[in-house]
Amino acid sequence: MKRLVGCLAVALLASLPLMLPAAEPLATWRDTPAKQRIIDFVTAVTTADGSGYVTPADRIAVFDDDGVLWPEKPRVQGMFALQALRAEVPDHPQWRLEMPYKAALELGGKYLQEASGADVFQLVAAAFAGRTQDDFRTAAREFLANARHPRFGRPYTRLGYEPMQDLLGYLRVNGFRIFIVTAGSSEFTRALAGDIYGIPADDVIGSSVGTTLREEQGQLVVRRLDQDIVLVDGPGKPLAIDRQIGKRPILAVGRINAGSDIDMLRYGRQPGRPGLQVLIQHDDFDREYAYDEADKASNKAANAGGWLTVSMRFDWLRIFNAD
Amino acid sequence: MKRLVGCLAVALLASLPLMLPAAEPLATWRDTPAKQRIIDFVTAVTTADGSGYVTPADRIAVFDDDGVLWPEKPRVQGMFALQALRAEVPDHPQWRLEMPYKAALELGGKYLQEASGADVFQLVAAAFAGRTQDDFRTAAREFLANARHPRFGRPYTRLGYEPMQDLLGYLRVNGFRIFIVTAGSSEFTRALAGDIYGIPADDVIGSSVGTTLREEQGQLVVRRLDQDIVLVDGPGKPLAIDRQIGKRPILAVGRINAGSDIDMLRYGRQPGRPGLQVLIQHDDFDREYAYDEADKASNKAANAGGWLTVSMRFDWLRIFNAD
Repeated sequence: MKRLVGCLAVALLASLPLMLPAAEPLATWRDTPAKQRIIDFVTAVTTADGSGYVTPADRIAVFDDDGVLWPEKPRVQGMFALQALRAEVPDHPQWRLEMPYKAALELGGKYLQEASGADVFQLVAAAFAGRTQDDFRTAAREFLANARHPRFGRPYTRLGYEPMQDLLGYLRVNGFRIFIVTAGSSEFTRALAGDIYGIPADDVIGSSVGTTLREEQGQLVVRRLDQDIVLVDGPGKPLAIDRQIGKRPILAVGRINAGSDIDMLRYGRQPGRPGLQVLIQHDDFDREYAYDEADKASNKAANAGGWLTVSMRFDWLRIFNAD
Repeated sequence: MKRLVGCLAVALLASLPLMLPAAEPLATWRDTPAKQRIIDFVTAVTTADGSGYVTPADRIAVFDDDGVLWPEKPRVQGMFALQALRAEVPDHPQWRLEMPYKAALELGGKYLQEASGADVFQLVAAAFAGRTQDDFRTAAREFLANARHPRFGRPYTRLGYEPMQDLLGYLRVNGFRIFIVTAGSSEFTRALAGDIYGIPADDVIGSSVGTTLREEQGQLVVRRLDQDIVLVDGPGKPLAIDRQIGKRPILAVGRINAGSDIDMLRYGRQPGRPGLQVLIQHDDFDREYAYDEADKASNKAANAGGWLTVSMRFDWLRIFNAD
């Protein structure tokens, strides 16, 4: 009987897309070849009798966070660390002399416009060393509830790119499992991923510090160390995907910035299996930001691999939700 | 429109348990206080206007694997490693002298009746050092497709405890998210978790070896190292749960053996929040195995914490599926 209940649930789930009115997919995207290529890919992997069909269990999609799902200027997690760094600096005078702390403390948000993912994570790791994970999560939620973006004036929680939220919804309806794979702190990213992107905490894979289990007042708590950092950036992204998901993604979405998503996108490609690799190009100075790579490494990899490059300026109808 | 589709999907999902005929929960459990306590707990956390209500996003359940979801005698992953160890031993003559390799090579399955989770993982790590993760997964699937349990004569894939499969189904229908947290290799456990337990690969959290990303014949592959082992056992279980799930589980299920699940069960307890901790007692010599701890550490922790101890002999109607 329990088996039957399970089967009924699965059958109902599988038939959901058919039962609901057909919404226009990717409504916040312009009608460009980029949009069409995404729709063609999703159609191919979900067409049951087609040659490109992929079973739902293997429809794994991975997304970078900063610069892919929301802006990376300034680095939000750096702004978060900055508050704690400033409070802690009397106990850590060496930070005034050492990079990247020195730059963050002296230049603040200006430095965080350009800081690398690795440096930003170093700031987060140092600022919260010794704190419990419960404390860290509370601090992250409080920051997100109160802080506002310096240019757009909105809470960061209302700066998710609307075309990407559309894409996540479209993939979800088509049976994809969606993961964030970010150089940022997994704990910080989990504090926002549910509300902004509808992604559960355990589907966020990010950089981490070492931790230790302590008994305090009869309770087991997890405390953060300032060592044993695992950075999920560059080659660290495929390694983290292998470690936590255990499957190669058929869809990988990164952005053009310092080549840091190249390995993640290349890893998704496997001969004889459908796959789509997407690079977001920040070329919209008026509506968001415009920046590029001096060595064009991501573009070269995209050309060699047949990846899709998405222009924020030309392919997206809007950047942020209008309200 | 997309938002509406998402909401409709969520609404339909949430209403599923109401729409389906009410099956008797835990039909393969005897009508004992243990069964009743589980049902009472699940009823409390899912009763929307009750004081013990927990939102679905926080209904996190964690299960140990060996000895909780299927037998741990002999250690299946040790049997798997043994094949590869024997093939590799000419290149590693020191294994004939060093523990735990020496014991495994000399005593085989007899040693693996008693070996610890840490030693078994050491065998797996050494036997497959240098291999790609793709190779490892293929080897795991092949082993599971062919090997049979020495006492029960069945394939290991048909040795999932039926009362636990019932419990997993009951939790799933009630909106729980279920994770395996095991000292065994996450890659090996993923090869069986879908078929036997219906648990997706990324919801398996296990021990891991360090890995490295290599470019081979124009492809990125992940290769296993023989170092940087992260053992998910004892205190390593709460740390892994914190790292990969980022939430404290409200339901944790371990077994009585060497005290290795005590930290995981204690970690789930948080003042002022509902929680259930379950220990499986192997006291059924006729139908499975009977073993215990000399120091009774798990029983003492259970008494101190008010955990539920489940007797395989008295609380379970059957152990394995009859067919």
